[in-house]
Amino acid sequence: MINGRLTRQVSFLLECDRLKQVQRRTLLTDGRRYENAAEHSWHIALMAMLLSEYAADADFDLLTVLQMLLVHDLVEIDAGDTYAYDEVGRQDQAQREQRAADRLFGLLPDDQARRLREIWDAFQAKDSAEARLAHALDRFQPVLHNYCTRGRTWQENGIRHHQVHERAASIRQGAPELGVYIEDLLNAAVRKGFLNP
Amino acid sequence: MINGRLTRQVSFLLECDRLKQVQRRTLLTDGRRYENAAEHSWHIALMAMLLSEYAADADFDLLTVLQMLLVHDLVEIDAGDTYAYDEVGRQDQAQREQRAADRLFGLLPDDQARRLREIWDAFQAKDSAEARLAHALDRFQPVLHNYCTRGRTWQENGIRHHQVHERAASIRQGAPELGVYIEDLLNAAVRKGFLNP
Repeated sequence: MINGRLTRQVSFLLECDRLKQVQRRTLLTDGRRYENAAEHSWHIALMAMLLSEYAADADFDLLTVLQMLLVHDLVEIDAGDTYAYDEVGRQDQAQREQRAADRLFGLLPDDQARRLREIWDAFQAKDSAEARLAHALDRFQPVLHNYCTRGRTWQENGIRHHQVHERAASIRQGAPELGVYIEDLLNAAVRKGFLNP
Repeated sequence: MINGRLTRQVSFLLECDRLKQVQRRTLLTDGRRYENAAEHSWHIALMAMLLSEYAADADFDLLTVLQMLLVHDLVEIDAGDTYAYDEVGRQDQAQREQRAADRLFGLLPDDQARRLREIWDAFQAKDSAEARLAHALDRFQPVLHNYCTRGRTWQENGIRHHQVHERAASIRQGAPELGVYIEDLLNAAVRKGFLNP
């Protein structure tokens, strides 16, 4: 019994290895290469450990936030990374990601498939304190990386201040002080020519 | 006040980005490239979410395990990855990693520097249920990857069955059923010529 169960768990975990090859549109802070979705997930989970004091809601469960962040991008194994400012790609993003969640979580034993799906659904729904903090961190990190790399991917994609500001609404909502920090950073980015006004 | 604190937190978190460029001696499961320490940390944190039912000690705190796994390799930013079978490199490994912990955690506000150091020290000490499970997963994952890649790095480094078996003691200790699974896998690896007897 254990063996059949463990075999399914291991199959899923080996499939998850593929997230390390899903390239994001964010550069590492030294600009040497693009970041992948697995290391990004690690980075924002670490951020949750250290920045959760800025959460908008005082009452939240850190374990849930970490679990959300660890699984939030798994669907990109099938659905790919959809660039934040890709209006066309975003049209069918939800549909592609739902299909990916069905297949991927379906590799697990039923009880764990349900549990991971619930965690991922709660992240997507964004109506809990945990999900709001998770989304804030998911948006916070790439802005930091963009600033560190003098806005290279902003420039390459012709992104303007108002677009990043709109995306940063999740930061203001989930962690207001981090939102203020990012607004200051965006203004500095415009002054320095990293981001178009 | 907040700003000075947040500035230190962000400096630390940006420094942590460098873990994405610390190369391990383990290949991705498709053998395309070596894994880095950040994505490895993500992968074993995900494993903790799904395999903690195999923990040797029934009483443990999953949040602590996840936090250990997220920070366990950070010292490699300064100290580098020490190959499991590198007897020379392992001689001064502890010293190099202690220095790295001093510098890296020292970037954080004092309370968080202390907290992360405590988590990392507890992982190193390996005398809690959480640390034993964390070590088991840290050893479990590379064996899976080695098997998936037909033992390529075992072959390249002339590793023999008894060496991997000895390293797997942590798996047997922290998660006995995963230890059995790995022993079966190692025997299969020898039969298939992936690992020298």
